[in-house]
Amino acid sequence: MIELNLIGFSTSGRGDTFTTGMNPATGEALSGQFPGATIDEVNQAVTSAQDAAVVYGKMSGEEKAEFLNAIAEEIENLGDTLVERCCAESGLPEARIIGERGRTTGQLRMFADLISEGSWLEATIDTAQKDRAPVPKPDLRRMLVPMGPVVVFAASNFPLAFSTAGGDTASALAGGNPVIVKAHGAHPGTSAMIGEAIVKSAKRTGMPHGVFSLLHGSGKIVGQGLIQHPGIKAAGFTGSEQAGRTLYDLANQRPEPIPFFAEMGSVNPVLLLPSAFNSETADMLAGSITMGVGQFCTNPGLIISTAGSDLDHFIQMLGAALSQLESGVMLTERICKSYQDGVESTLSQQGITVEARSENGDGPNMGQPTLASVAGQTFLADPELATEVFGPFSMVVKCKDNAELEAAIGLLDGQLTGSVIGSKDELDQYHAAIETMESKVGRIIYNGVPTGVEVCPSMQHGGPYPAASDARFTSVGTGAIKRFVRPIAFQSWPQEKLPRELQDGNPMNIWRLVNGNLSKDS
Amino acid sequence: MIELNLIGFSTSGRGDTFTTGMNPATGEALSGQFPGATIDEVNQAVTSAQDAAVVYGKMSGEEKAEFLNAIAEEIENLGDTLVERCCAESGLPEARIIGERGRTTGQLRMFADLISEGSWLEATIDTAQKDRAPVPKPDLRRMLVPMGPVVVFAASNFPLAFSTAGGDTASALAGGNPVIVKAHGAHPGTSAMIGEAIVKSAKRTGMPHGVFSLLHGSGKIVGQGLIQHPGIKAAGFTGSEQAGRTLYDLANQRPEPIPFFAEMGSVNPVLLLPSAFNSETADMLAGSITMGVGQFCTNPGLIISTAGSDLDHFIQMLGAALSQLESGVMLTERICKSYQDGVESTLSQQGITVEARSENGDGPNMGQPTLASVAGQTFLADPELATEVFGPFSMVVKCKDNAELEAAIGLLDGQLTGSVIGSKDELDQYHAAIETMESKVGRIIYNGVPTGVEVCPSMQHGGPYPAASDARFTSVGTGAIKRFVRPIAFQSWPQEKLPRELQDGNPMNIWRLVNGNLSKDS
Repeated sequence: MIELNLIGFSTSGRGDTFTTGMNPATGEALSGQFPGATIDEVNQAVTSAQDAAVVYGKMSGEEKAEFLNAIAEEIENLGDTLVERCCAESGLPEARIIGERGRTTGQLRMFADLISEGSWLEATIDTAQKDRAPVPKPDLRRMLVPMGPVVVFAASNFPLAFSTAGGDTASALAGGNPVIVKAHGAHPGTSAMIGEAIVKSAKRTGMPHGVFSLLHGSGKIVGQGLIQHPGIKAAGFTGSEQAGRTLYDLANQRPEPIPFFAEMGSVNPVLLLPSAFNSETADMLAGSITMGVGQFCTNPGLIISTAGSDLDHFIQMLGAALSQLESGVMLTERICKSYQDGVESTLSQQGITVEARSENGDGPNMGQPTLASVAGQTFLADPELATEVFGPFSMVVKCKDNAELEAAIGLLDGQLTGSVIGSKDELDQYHAAIETMESKVGRIIYNGVPTGVEVCPSMQHGGPYPAASDARFTSVGTGAIKRFVRPIAFQSWPQEKLPRELQDGNPMNIWRLVNGNLSKDS
Repeated sequence: MIELNLIGFSTSGRGDTFTTGMNPATGEALSGQFPGATIDEVNQAVTSAQDAAVVYGKMSGEEKAEFLNAIAEEIENLGDTLVERCCAESGLPEARIIGERGRTTGQLRMFADLISEGSWLEATIDTAQKDRAPVPKPDLRRMLVPMGPVVVFAASNFPLAFSTAGGDTASALAGGNPVIVKAHGAHPGTSAMIGEAIVKSAKRTGMPHGVFSLLHGSGKIVGQGLIQHPGIKAAGFTGSEQAGRTLYDLANQRPEPIPFFAEMGSVNPVLLLPSAFNSETADMLAGSITMGVGQFCTNPGLIISTAGSDLDHFIQMLGAALSQLESGVMLTERICKSYQDGVESTLSQQGITVEARSENGDGPNMGQPTLASVAGQTFLADPELATEVFGPFSMVVKCKDNAELEAAIGLLDGQLTGSVIGSKDELDQYHAAIETMESKVGRIIYNGVPTGVEVCPSMQHGGPYPAASDARFTSVGTGAIKRFVRPIAFQSWPQEKLPRELQDGNPMNIWRLVNGNLSKDS
C-alpha cells in the first residue's frame, strides 16, 4: 500500500495534511497516512494526463481493452488483502465486498469487450454523390472520439464499484480518456491498493505515463482544483446533491464549461397498490430498505399508497419485518450522524408517525432501520418530506384517494428509479399516476425493488435532476461510456488516413450506418 | 400573416412593444407589427406545452411523422409569398432562400423518415435469467423518451433552416417534445408565416393544442423568461457566443438545470499546405469566404500557412479572387455595423496587413469582402486575433516554421470545423498539426471548404466549446434528435404494458440490441 499520491507512474507526497482510514465498526484508526495533494501536484497530474491523452486517445480498442482486462486481473491479484482493508474501512461485510469486487472487475471486462468489438463507436458513413445537383454531396464519415482527461470523484458507498476503478473510471478509460481519480477520504487504503493495481496494469500493457493518477486530499484543493483546471475535459461524480451541485456549478462556470455527470441519489418512490398488501411484499420491501444499511442511492425511501385499514395492516407487517432486521454499521461516523439527524428531524415534524424501529445494535455508528408514515395531505403541504434520508429509512405516504396519490407523485423531483407493486389490472387503474412516475424516473420497476442495479446495456442509472445532472446519460452499464466521448466527422478524407473504423471494406468488422443502412458489410 | 403570438392554436397580442421587419437592402420598414409576448403569454405558452407533452410524447412515430411531413407541405404551400417576405427581411437572394427552403423541408422529412422507421430509439433488451447465481437477473428494456417542452431560439442567418421550423424545431418535435420558438427579431414576418404553417399542420394531423407556440419579443422577457421557466426541459440555440453563454448560464443556474445546446459559431481554421498554393485553391477559398456575404457559422475566417514568397504569391491570388467578388447586403443593420467594427478593429492592430478589399457595393448594409494577414509570431502573442469576425473576412497567419504553425493551431478554441488543403504526402508531413486540429473541431475537411453543411446522419455540426456548448451533440443531421431525448429502463415490466418498441416479437420491426446482439429479429 503506497501512502502517496500516484501521478502517472510517479509517486508524490508534498502535502502536509493527511487522510487516515477509520474502521467505523470499532472507531479505530487504520494504518496509513495519505498526504493530500497540493495544487502543484494537481497541476502535475493534469499535465501528465494531457500528455497521455495524445497517445492513449489514439490507441486501438484492443490495446485499451488489454489495459482494462489487466486492471481486473490485478484487482483480483490483490486477494484477501484488499477485501480485508475494504471491509475495515467501510464497515461493509465480507460477502458484500467480495460481490462488489466481482461487479467491479465485471464492469472492467464488460467495457473491454465493448471496445474490442468496436460497434459502440457509432461509425456512420454517407458516401459522396459527385453528380448531385445543385451541389455535389461530399463523402462524410463520423465516429466517436475521446474528450480528453476525465476527473472521477469516488463515492463513499461503493468503495470498489463506484470508486477508484469503478464504473466512471472504467467507462472513461474505455472511451480513450486518461483518468484522474479524487480518492474518497473514507477509504484511502482501498483507493491506494486499487490505484497501484491500475498503475501496474498500465505499465504491464504499455500504456503511457499519466493515463491514470490518484490524488488523495480535500474537496477544496483537489476536487475543485481539478474541476477548474482547463486541461480537464469532463468529470463523473457520485455523491450527495450538495457536493454534486457545487462541483456541477464550477464545471459550468468555467470559461470553457465541461460535461459534469453527477449522480446524486434519490428517494426512489414505490407506488404500492392494494393487491400488494401482503407479507411477501412487506418482506421484500423491508429487505430492500435495509440492504447495505440503506446506503444505496436506489434505496426505497418513500412508499406511496392508498390510505385505509388494509394499508394500516400492511404497515404493521412491514414494520414487523423491518424490526426483525438488525441495525448495521454505517460507512462513516459522519454518514451515521447525518442519518440519525435526518431521521430525528423527519420524525419530529408534525403529522409524522413512527411505525417501527428495529433494535439498535451494539457498537458505534449503527444505522437503525426506521419506518414512518404520513398522511397524503401533510406530505403534499411539505415537499421537503420527499428529501432523501440516506440510510435504512422509509416513509409511507397514506393518500386518501387517487387524486392525492397522483398529486404526491406529481410533486416529486427527478428520481433514479420508481417502482410499482400491484396486479396488472391495477396498472390500468393507476395509469395516470404511473405515467407521471415514468416522466420523473430513469428506471421503472414492476413488482420488484429498486436496489440491485444490473450492469448491462439496457440499464439506465440516472434520471431527471437531481437524480442526475443530465438525464440523457447513465453511470451504470455500457451506455456510461457515452458521457466521455464526442463525435467527429471526416469530410472527403483520404481512405488510408481515416481511422480504420471508417475505412471502406470495414476492416474492423463493426456495425456501421452506411448510407442510412445498418450493416457489417465491407 | 398573423401579426400576433401563436400560443398553441390560439393567438395573443397583449404586449405593447412591437417588432417590425426591415429590408436591409433598402432600409425600408416592412409591413406588420408583431407584439412582443408578455410574461403572462410566456407562461401560457409553457403551460400549453406541458399539457401537450403528456399527449404528444406518447404518440407513435408514424403520427409524429405525419405532423412533420405536413409542416414541410404547408411550408411549400406558402409559395412565393414566403420567398418574397424572406428575401425582403434577410437581404438574401431568391436562389439562396429557395435552396434554404428545400433544406428546411428536407430536414423535416428526414426526421419524419427517421421516426417512422424507429430504430433511432436505441431499443435495448436484456432478458431475465431467473436461475442466475447469486441473484437472478431481471428483465430490463431501455429506449429513448421525450424530455418535455423545448425552447428553440431562432437564428438570424438562416431565416428558414435554423429558425421557426428549422433543425432544432424539427429534431425536438421528432423526439416527441412540444416546441416553443422565440422568433428572431430580424425576420418576424417569415417567422409568422412559418408558425402559421406549423399550427395548420398540427390541426390537420390531430396534434394537441400547445404542441407548438411562437413568441415574438425581447430576449429579456421572452428568451430569459422561457429558459428560466420550470416547465421547460431543454433548449436549442444558434447565435453569438455572448448571447449563447448568457442563456447557457441561466439554464445551468436553474434549481433544476436543463440541457441547453448552443451552437455559437467559430473561426473555422484552414490549414493551407504549400502544394495548395494555386489559383484553384484561391478561387475555392474566395468563394467560401464570401458565400452568403460570409454569414455562415462555418465561414473560413483563419488561414494558417507557412510564410515565404510562395505564400505571398498565393495571398495575391486569393486577394485578387476576393476583390472580383462583389459586396453583398448583410442580414441586418446591426450585423453589418458589427462586421465593419470587427474588421476595423482587427485591421487597426499592430502587425496586421490589409491584403485585399473588394469594391464596396452601392446601398446600405453592404459587407465588403476583406483579406488580412499577420505574422505567426504576432498571432501567437495575441489570441484575440483568433476571434470570429462574422462576415466576409478572413486572415492569413504566416508561420515561419512547423513549430509556429502547430502552436497557432494549438492556441485555438473549439471549432465547428477545420480544413486541411494539401497533398496526401503533406498529411503525413504535417501530422502533428492535423492531430491537434482534430482535437479541436467537430468536422475536419480535406481539400474542401467548410461552408456547405450536408444534412445527413454522418454530419457533425458542433464541436468543443465555444463552437458548441456541449461537444457531444450536433445541431445538424439526424443526430440532432439526441439532444432532446433521454433513456428510460423498464424492469420486469409486463409485456403488454411495454412500449411496442420494446415488446417481444419486435412488432415495430426496428433494430434492437437484444442480449448484446444487434438485430431485427422478433
